[in-house]
Amino acid sequence: MKLHTYYRSSASYRVRIALNLKGLVAEEAYVHLSKNGGEQFGAAFDALNPQHLLPVLEVDDLVLPQSLAIIEYLDETRPALPLLPGDPAGRARVRALSQMIAADIHPIDNLRVLKYLGQELGATQEQKNAWYRHWVALGLAALERQLAGNPATGLFCHGDTPTMADCCLVPQLYNARRFECDLAAYPTITAIEARCLALPAFNGAQPDLQPDAE
Amino acid sequence: MKLHTYYRSSASYRVRIALNLKGLVAEEAYVHLSKNGGEQFGAAFDALNPQHLLPVLEVDDLVLPQSLAIIEYLDETRPALPLLPGDPAGRARVRALSQMIAADIHPIDNLRVLKYLGQELGATQEQKNAWYRHWVALGLAALERQLAGNPATGLFCHGDTPTMADCCLVPQLYNARRFECDLAAYPTITAIEARCLALPAFNGAQPDLQPDAE
Repeated sequence: MKLHTYYRSSASYRVRIALNLKGLVAEEAYVHLSKNGGEQFGAAFDALNPQHLLPVLEVDDLVLPQSLAIIEYLDETRPALPLLPGDPAGRARVRALSQMIAADIHPIDNLRVLKYLGQELGATQEQKNAWYRHWVALGLAALERQLAGNPATGLFCHGDTPTMADCCLVPQLYNARRFECDLAAYPTITAIEARCLALPAFNGAQPDLQPDAE
Repeated sequence: MKLHTYYRSSASYRVRIALNLKGLVAEEAYVHLSKNGGEQFGAAFDALNPQHLLPVLEVDDLVLPQSLAIIEYLDETRPALPLLPGDPAGRARVRALSQMIAADIHPIDNLRVLKYLGQELGATQEQKNAWYRHWVALGLAALERQLAGNPATGLFCHGDTPTMADCCLVPQLYNARRFECDLAAYPTITAIEARCLALPAFNGAQPDLQPDAE
């Protein structure tokens, strides 16, 4: 199993957590998203993923892109220590919470989008920061309400063991802190984050602790 | 079963197709995304979905947001006429293709993002159109390569029956045409689209044929 990853890639961070939670070990191949004009655009990575996005997991003779698809695949083929609940309603909730982050916050704030704002629309750094914080605030406010108001929320996003939703939440908060987003309005979210980061699976997956961190 | 929908909502369109493909009928509640300042921000819809995004499906005493989570739930609880393959590798591929659209194209081009570009960054209509086309072109170019280069692609995105990936593809192409994106470089994608739209399940779900179309 080989994970193509970058320490600051939020979607790679999700999969690093998932692997750790499931007790799986992957060899790592590092793809630097800014060096050499972005190694994700080089021929080697282009052949693996024409989308030029991380992560990619090579596993069972497959080449899998898309972090949530990867996590679901690992969970289906290595069912010990599950990251999705056993009931359809629980799975729907965990997938929805995950997608609220992985579809509706992160892609709008991704590196390539911020670059376009600056290069094509002349956005200043201040405007790019405001953009970033706007989508984080909108997304986390909704997430806070979904979590705080639901009896299915436990110590973690869904129940008392970590799920795919927590694998998405913690990297999004790491990014939010990098962009100095105010998180005071999300006490349920930050309490879950604290519980996650107390676990070695989450803590060890943090960007700054990766071998390719700068 | 009640689907909260808007005829032009791309994510609602995905679920309309999925329901049709599975032979399921849902009552519809219409949420107009621009009338009255956006009915998705009204108290009634806010109570259903604090994210203020469509669709929402009320089913089995659950209130489900997020189109892909809804489709997976329907497929798990109503397994006839499956929209995901039976094997983990196939499911991973269908999920990844779906997420390439539902996470990495659509959210960046969504109505709320285009509004922000105009209102907060002063983008002109021409700049907003260029933005839209940029993310569509980037996403569809990668998707074309994933589809054209893979023996798992059949008459549809995965094999010879429609899956969740086709439920995502067709609405994205409807939007691309609205914004006059050039689709000539994606022959595999447009051939799959034509096969889909020849089926009543896809054809009947088209925005302009919905009761709330204007």
